[in-house]
Amino acid sequence: MTTSLDTLKEKGRRLRIHSLKATTEAGSGHPSSCLSAADLVSVIFFNEMRFDPKDPHNPSNDRFVLSKGHAAPLLYAAYVEAGIISEKEMMSLRRLDSDLEGHPTPRIPWVDVATGSLGQGLPAGLGAALAAQMDGRPYNTYVLLGDGECAEGSVWEAAALASYYKASNLYAVIDVNGLGQSQHTMDRFDVNRFAEKFRAFGWFAVIIDGHNYVDIVEAFEKCRQFGDSLPRAIVAKTAKGKDVSMLENREGWHGKPLPKADLERALKELSHPFASDGFRPDPRPAGTSRPAEGSIEVTVNRKLGEPVATREAYGDALVQLAEKDSRIVALDGDTKNSTYSEKLLKARPERFLEMFIAEQNMVGVAMGLAARGKIPFVSTFAAFLTRAYDQIRMAGVSRSNVKFCGSHAGVSIGEDGPSQMGLEDLAMFRPVPGSVILYPCDAVSTERLVAEAARWHGIAYIRTTRPKTPVLYSNEVQFPIGGSKVLRRSEKDCATVVAAGITVHEALKAASQLEAEQTPIRVIDAYSVKPIDGTGLWNAAKATSGRIVVVEDHYLEGGLGDAVLNAVGNQAKVVKLAIREIPRSGPPEALLDKYGISSRHIVDAVKKLLL
Amino acid sequence: MTTSLDTLKEKGRRLRIHSLKATTEAGSGHPSSCLSAADLVSVIFFNEMRFDPKDPHNPSNDRFVLSKGHAAPLLYAAYVEAGIISEKEMMSLRRLDSDLEGHPTPRIPWVDVATGSLGQGLPAGLGAALAAQMDGRPYNTYVLLGDGECAEGSVWEAAALASYYKASNLYAVIDVNGLGQSQHTMDRFDVNRFAEKFRAFGWFAVIIDGHNYVDIVEAFEKCRQFGDSLPRAIVAKTAKGKDVSMLENREGWHGKPLPKADLERALKELSHPFASDGFRPDPRPAGTSRPAEGSIEVTVNRKLGEPVATREAYGDALVQLAEKDSRIVALDGDTKNSTYSEKLLKARPERFLEMFIAEQNMVGVAMGLAARGKIPFVSTFAAFLTRAYDQIRMAGVSRSNVKFCGSHAGVSIGEDGPSQMGLEDLAMFRPVPGSVILYPCDAVSTERLVAEAARWHGIAYIRTTRPKTPVLYSNEVQFPIGGSKVLRRSEKDCATVVAAGITVHEALKAASQLEAEQTPIRVIDAYSVKPIDGTGLWNAAKATSGRIVVVEDHYLEGGLGDAVLNAVGNQAKVVKLAIREIPRSGPPEALLDKYGISSRHIVDAVKKLLL
Repeated sequence: MTTSLDTLKEKGRRLRIHSLKATTEAGSGHPSSCLSAADLVSVIFFNEMRFDPKDPHNPSNDRFVLSKGHAAPLLYAAYVEAGIISEKEMMSLRRLDSDLEGHPTPRIPWVDVATGSLGQGLPAGLGAALAAQMDGRPYNTYVLLGDGECAEGSVWEAAALASYYKASNLYAVIDVNGLGQSQHTMDRFDVNRFAEKFRAFGWFAVIIDGHNYVDIVEAFEKCRQFGDSLPRAIVAKTAKGKDVSMLENREGWHGKPLPKADLERALKELSHPFASDGFRPDPRPAGTSRPAEGSIEVTVNRKLGEPVATREAYGDALVQLAEKDSRIVALDGDTKNSTYSEKLLKARPERFLEMFIAEQNMVGVAMGLAARGKIPFVSTFAAFLTRAYDQIRMAGVSRSNVKFCGSHAGVSIGEDGPSQMGLEDLAMFRPVPGSVILYPCDAVSTERLVAEAARWHGIAYIRTTRPKTPVLYSNEVQFPIGGSKVLRRSEKDCATVVAAGITVHEALKAASQLEAEQTPIRVIDAYSVKPIDGTGLWNAAKATSGRIVVVEDHYLEGGLGDAVLNAVGNQAKVVKLAIREIPRSGPPEALLDKYGISSRHIVDAVKKLLL
Repeated sequence: MTTSLDTLKEKGRRLRIHSLKATTEAGSGHPSSCLSAADLVSVIFFNEMRFDPKDPHNPSNDRFVLSKGHAAPLLYAAYVEAGIISEKEMMSLRRLDSDLEGHPTPRIPWVDVATGSLGQGLPAGLGAALAAQMDGRPYNTYVLLGDGECAEGSVWEAAALASYYKASNLYAVIDVNGLGQSQHTMDRFDVNRFAEKFRAFGWFAVIIDGHNYVDIVEAFEKCRQFGDSLPRAIVAKTAKGKDVSMLENREGWHGKPLPKADLERALKELSHPFASDGFRPDPRPAGTSRPAEGSIEVTVNRKLGEPVATREAYGDALVQLAEKDSRIVALDGDTKNSTYSEKLLKARPERFLEMFIAEQNMVGVAMGLAARGKIPFVSTFAAFLTRAYDQIRMAGVSRSNVKFCGSHAGVSIGEDGPSQMGLEDLAMFRPVPGSVILYPCDAVSTERLVAEAARWHGIAYIRTTRPKTPVLYSNEVQFPIGGSKVLRRSEKDCATVVAAGITVHEALKAASQLEAEQTPIRVIDAYSVKPIDGTGLWNAAKATSGRIVVVEDHYLEGGLGDAVLNAVGNQAKVVKLAIREIPRSGPPEALLDKYGISSRHIVDAVKKLLL
């Protein structure tokens, strides 16, 4: 489609006016960052993108990701000019009762992922682009980046992967205004440097004047002509605060609205219309809507006592679910032969994305896939998910439907040593709003919990273990989120041991030994770390005179022990067994014992409680 | 210095033999990843680097960082060949009683930072290189990277910064063996692609055959001839498992030692010596050792009641400390005008490093600086420290002496919205072994706690707040790590409110209101979140009939509330007031109230406890 240059210029002028008015009204915000990109956004929204302003859920709509999220007013202004929201709504910017927040979030149906933590837009946009490839959809994805945020490694993780997957349906537009928050950017106005970087990463790149409408319109044409099978980057030299003399190219204006007194003057400089509004949206036919949900169920078929690593059962469950629901996809960071996500690669190659050793981008891509209706399962070593905590945090803000599996949890991995041991992953996921944390101890509970995670709408974290553990549960047992299992119980139980994952097996050993010594204990498998089974724990505490030992293969802070403390409060004396120092390399059993979470230590802790 | 090619070849042969023997003996490890880099390491250690094998602490020693940490046996083998450890010690690889862990850690004095989480070596190496620049030291830093880990964005964050700071004393050697853990790498053997990327990021780059000793030796010469003022990259095409036919270039051997049965055959292929050992170390003169410690003290001069943001007091303290101790340096990610680290930039520009918007590299560089004797203070928004959680985790494993300051904590930042609010930072830092967490509520405690953090050897996290808060403490008050302050106390206190930072002021408001209603409460400022003042809390609990309300501007899980629960256990009924959902944009006071942590909610919670 083609809109007249005058109409595009007029849109640009209005985008500037809306951005200035709304931020002055709000008394905060980043108008100068909006003005540098106003002309780029005008062309992207009103000449390039095809979408139905009346239907945010049209699966053929082109996608736009505002990676420089602090320019939110510019995005909202584009919504005004597209007829999506009213000028009046625009003026509610940053108010407690408004969905037009300081940085964009999916409270607005047009926003796929929350932005505002810089460098995360391109990975998310790549996710949307890859979803289009998977589903054979015609839409393009446009990502607007700031120049400053190109210092974030996540941008280059995405750049490399986009070229690897030939995402020619992905456009990155870089707003090079040369000014960061506190000073000039690293590369200032060196647009060649930006273009060289993208080319070195396998992109087609054009350099333009970001305020010249002919340049901007032609840039996209060039991309289509010459960018065959390559992702496309448009590097635009711009001026922060463009077209308002008191802001243009001035330092010290980042994140500052115009004072009411100056707004008038600024608007006067923008008072000459270029044209009447000649924009007409040109949506694509909606096409088929997202695939219907399948029945997300697994059939479990394990032998009691059979030794199976929970990480391997994870892979088996993934395959079963993918067969039943076409939305299920898996991503891994070159650990698929350890996490066993490779089982899905072998069974359904088209549902698996190798993301190589770049966890931030892997999570960002998963957010983009989820926004386009997929149910992505992201797996790597639990330790390496810490690499993407900011993305996980933003997935929380985005209410993304992303599932995480962290394998190789705890010291039980053995000789590889502390850098490979996930010992803070529970602490990391617990605060994420709306997240659930599932920690199976055997193959049966793993398969059930992977299905529960897939059914849960929102962030789910599954923690798996490296060594094989014997199957404890029969095949028909269910493991609802928020539940727990009592594995040992008698009338005479004198204490409760709460365990999860590998430590469940240590707890059972301890129980047998204590039973032989006429000291029966209750053993609880707290497979649902969040939400934790408060009632179950409460009842166990009451039945065992308020004596609880919690044992976990995780650092002392923020994990299962803290979850249990929160559940039982002052109704029980809780003793926590957990990792209290940086572990060494050694055999799994030796490490469990050296760091105080083996059956021997559980026995001692129970006896101490009874003194 | 120049060692004969035959001697270098002989060293390479021995490095391979040690790596194979030790991993087979250990029964685990990554010999094939050692073999691809053995020739590179031979030239780096025995022809390039100048160091004193008898003195790991010689400040003029060249530095070596094994970024591909899984090749640890190769590093240990180099120590054997340098006469640093014995062949017998080498055979203790991965044993519980050995410091030769599966991945290198600073338990070995020659290891500056722990590696094993990929992509972290170049940032740390850059830190060491920048320390050399700051101190005018002659040493070079050599970083050996795997090709697979170059997918990590942190590598490119460091690459960009290294060129920005003209770190020509930094050498990156990339071992391009084309094979990752689970399959071929993203760029396979496309060495040109690697070189183009480094050149686009401002490096001098050479491409070589990583098994041709003439090539390798000349590559470093070329770097010196043509790499003027640029960081230098040597891109080496290699073969995984080189020189052992059953391993060479074979998939499926990553992370697998040779079975005992095959070791013999492999060693036979390596049985022909090239020369007798002609290596003689050539250390540089030690030069002056690290600067003596200054008295890390602050003089506090504030007016009671004066409104000062703790983030601003942080900047003031930083300047005072830097004046007194030359080891103090500050790093910031283009937020220095918000965190107020810019105060140090203004006072002592040579002690400040602008790291731009690249938090992972910022933390990695800080680790490198700390390893070279600096006391680095890393600051950005608390929310954005989540971007570097993997690096923070590895700083813990490295026992790094790095200080972190996270500003803009919690909903009290106001209109910028959830993406900018640090709400999981306490949960993130609490599990890090050896870390302390300090959370001041006014300017006096901030200045004292910044000094405490600087004196603490290890990781310290300081949490600051955006809005101004009144000075509560007089200038002479001390704030020891592990302590707390009782701000309101009476004989009749019927409950204890534990607060920190912004919520201390809400708690005081609540106390005044409750006092007016004849319901006096005890108010505790828990400025030391880790370690928490167990005794102080315990006494308060006893004095107030076991009634405690904890109020924090942090998500419900993993923060101050959990720390208090752990301290008082079943001795008190603890009610937690914290953020329970994803916050919106709005005015600070409105957000504190909407999300349940304002004085009104504290009053209600206390009254409910009294029912």
